[in-house]
Amino acid sequence: MSAPTATKIGLNTLLPSIRRIHGIIREKSEVEIKLVTGDQLRGKINWIDDSCICLDTSGHKLIIWQHAIAYIKS
Amino acid sequence: MSAPTATKIGLNTLLPSIRRIHGIIREKSEVEIKLVTGDQLRGKINWIDDSCICLDTSGHKLIIWQHAIAYIKS
Amino acid sequence: MSAPTATKIGLNTLLPSIRRIHGIIREKSEVEIKLVTGDQLRGKINWIDDSCICLDTSGHKLIIWQHAIAYIKS
Amino acid sequence: MSAPTATKIGLNTLLPSIRRIHGIIREKSEVEIKLVTGDQLRGKINWIDDSCICLDTSGHKLIIWQHAIAYIKS
Amino acid sequence: MSAPTATKIGLNTLLPSIRRIHGIIREKSEVEIKLVTGDQLRGKINWIDDSCICLDTSGHKLIIWQHAIAYIKS
Amino acid sequence: MSAPTATKIGLNTLLPSIRRIHGIIREKSEVEIKLVTGDQLRGKINWIDDSCICLDTSGHKLIIWQHAIAYIKS
Repeated sequence: MSAPTATKIGLNTLLPSIRRIHGIIREKSEVEIKLVTGDQLRGKINWIDDSCICLDTSGHKLIIWQHAIAYIKS
Repeated sequence: MSAPTATKIGLNTLLPSIRRIHGIIREKSEVEIKLVTGDQLRGKINWIDDSCICLDTSGHKLIIWQHAIAYIKS
Repeated sequence: MSAPTATKIGLNTLLPSIRRIHGIIREKSEVEIKLVTGDQLRGKINWIDDSCICLDTSGHKLIIWQHAIAYIKS
Repeated sequence: MSAPTATKIGLNTLLPSIRRIHGIIREKSEVEIKLVTGDQLRGKINWIDDSCICLDTSGHKLIIWQHAIAYIKS
Repeated sequence: MSAPTATKIGLNTLLPSIRRIHGIIREKSEVEIKLVTGDQLRGKINWIDDSCICLDTSGHKLIIWQHAIAYIKS
Repeated sequence: MSAPTATKIGLNTLLPSIRRIHGIIREKSEVEIKLVTGDQLRGKINWIDDSCICLDTSGHKLIIWQHAIAYIKS
């Protein structure tokens, strides 16, 4: 399933946050995602869309709702 | 009650998150849903609409509000 | 106070979640509502509108904000 | 400060939730408001607008943001 | 930095909540702000805009996001 | 990656909160950011956009979602 280009979804690719995350995806960097639940998840981001981020973490694919994210550390 | 096709409801089926969840529904895969309350629910997703996800779990149907979901693990 | 028909309020009655809850109201089924606070409320749903759900529980009428609901179990 | 009529502010007075709360205000009924923080506040509602509810409780006026309300028990 | 008049920002000054807070600002009243985190902050409100409130508290200026406020006690 | 000027992103630079944060960025002031999770983060703000704030903290760049911020102390 090739990720649709950003223009087909509502992401504003001018935003520094979206540009930063697209850079993290391109570089396949390892990140830490802290959730509002207190969970700390480590892995690589596959894609981001208007509502979610897909994180590849120890063999599982997590669809994480952005509203549950506190921060991404890279 | 046959699930209305996505076009009758506001889901953007171009989004990778919606396409991924529609795939999970078609494949009737078992998933784990982590809520912002800390609850971890296991079951099969019946449908998704603009606000909620229906999870079939140990004989109960849960209407889960998307705003309460942290992530779906599949 | 007769509940106004859905068309006078903004509910999208095509959504599976709204159709499911309207079914629960018609059948006067007992439900469990889990809140993001961790509270678990049992009772019968009187009505649902754009922002709230009214639950009849042990003689009290609770106006529950939908943003505080994690899930409804029926 | 006479409370502006609902039409000057964005409240949809057709919604059962708004009609119920306006009834509670007219009847000056004592209510319990449960917040998402777990706080339980008792008092009388002075007014409701698009974002907040004003509760008169033991001599203090609380401006409560609706996003922090789990439910109102009356 | 003189606070821009409300008309330059999106505040609806007809809302009782905004009128109440503008009154608190004019009177330089001491208030208590309870956050959804459970924090209780005391101080004087400098300004309010569409998203935030500025609280002057023991020599610090806090920019508080309204989404994190449970209530203001005055 | 030079931060796009505010006009290319949706920030309302008339808002006192945005003007205050742009001032903090220009002055490279050290701030404390309290999250709704209870986390307290110290560092310097690199940029702010419609959804996030970038904080430079002990060698890491955190992309913090504004919805997770309770307040900024400066």
